[in-house]
Amino acid sequence: MPGHPLDHAGLEMLPFDVCLRLLRSVPLGRVAFYGDGEMVVLPVNHAMDGQRVVFRTARGSKLSAAAEQGLVSFEADDYDPETQAGWSVLVTGRAELVYDGEEIQRLRHLGLEPWAAAVEHPFWVRILPSSVTGRRTGVSA
Amino acid sequence: MPGHPLDHAGLEMLPFDVCLRLLRSVPLGRVAFYGDGEMVVLPVNHAMDGQRVVFRTARGSKLSAAAEQGLVSFEADDYDPETQAGWSVLVTGRAELVYDGEEIQRLRHLGLEPWAAAVEHPFWVRILPSSVTGRRTGVSA
Repeated sequence: MPGHPLDHAGLEMLPFDVCLRLLRSVPLGRVAFYGDGEMVVLPVNHAMDGQRVVFRTARGSKLSAAAEQGLVSFEADDYDPETQAGWSVLVTGRAELVYDGEEIQRLRHLGLEPWAAAVEHPFWVRILPSSVTGRRTGVSA
Repeated sequence: MPGHPLDHAGLEMLPFDVCLRLLRSVPLGRVAFYGDGEMVVLPVNHAMDGQRVVFRTARGSKLSAAAEQGLVSFEADDYDPETQAGWSVLVTGRAELVYDGEEIQRLRHLGLEPWAAAVEHPFWVRILPSSVTGRRTGVSA
């Protein structure tokens, strides 16, 4: 998809709608947050609820604590070692735990499973994005 | 690989040597760092130099600035949506840019290409781990 501007490293900078489409195209992303004084990065299965990233995490986890404080980033990517084509989308924003029963019922229809299937009674977390940026390298992913 | 302890979410906690082996098994990981006041997560192609994570980044990038300050985390993972088996390894530690010519010559033999193939004259960065932790879910990955 030519015509998008390039960043200083020669990477194609992707528009918002392409970023959202790419976020929907993969089942897995990574959440980054501060926990116990260090930067933690963990994989999560995610879904998109419109422009919001939704995922689940265990109650009592470091991640649920970070989400309660709203301080998380989310990244998803895909890369083909053969062609060296890849993309990466970064979402920063405010995370919140979902407590509302009707809302949880609605989110259940997204068909989302926690990365750790063993997790019982996980929280639903959503990220209200303040910025969504994406970059692509190589041929179209 | 049974017999490893489980964390509170029921995930198998992996010993150090298994973490290192898994880190070597994939070409791609993600670096997390603070840049311009937000938490950034970017994919990088990486290699292992013994227990150190090595990757390359463009000169002048936010990431090279963060690496100069030593403040990065690194994560790699793999996940099979079919079996819901997956693992994730997190490396925290001190990053440093590699300036020494002989050292760069040695690292070149690791055969590492930057994620963004267009990057010219990238820096070499290595992470000296202070902690390496890994978790696994589902059947053996």
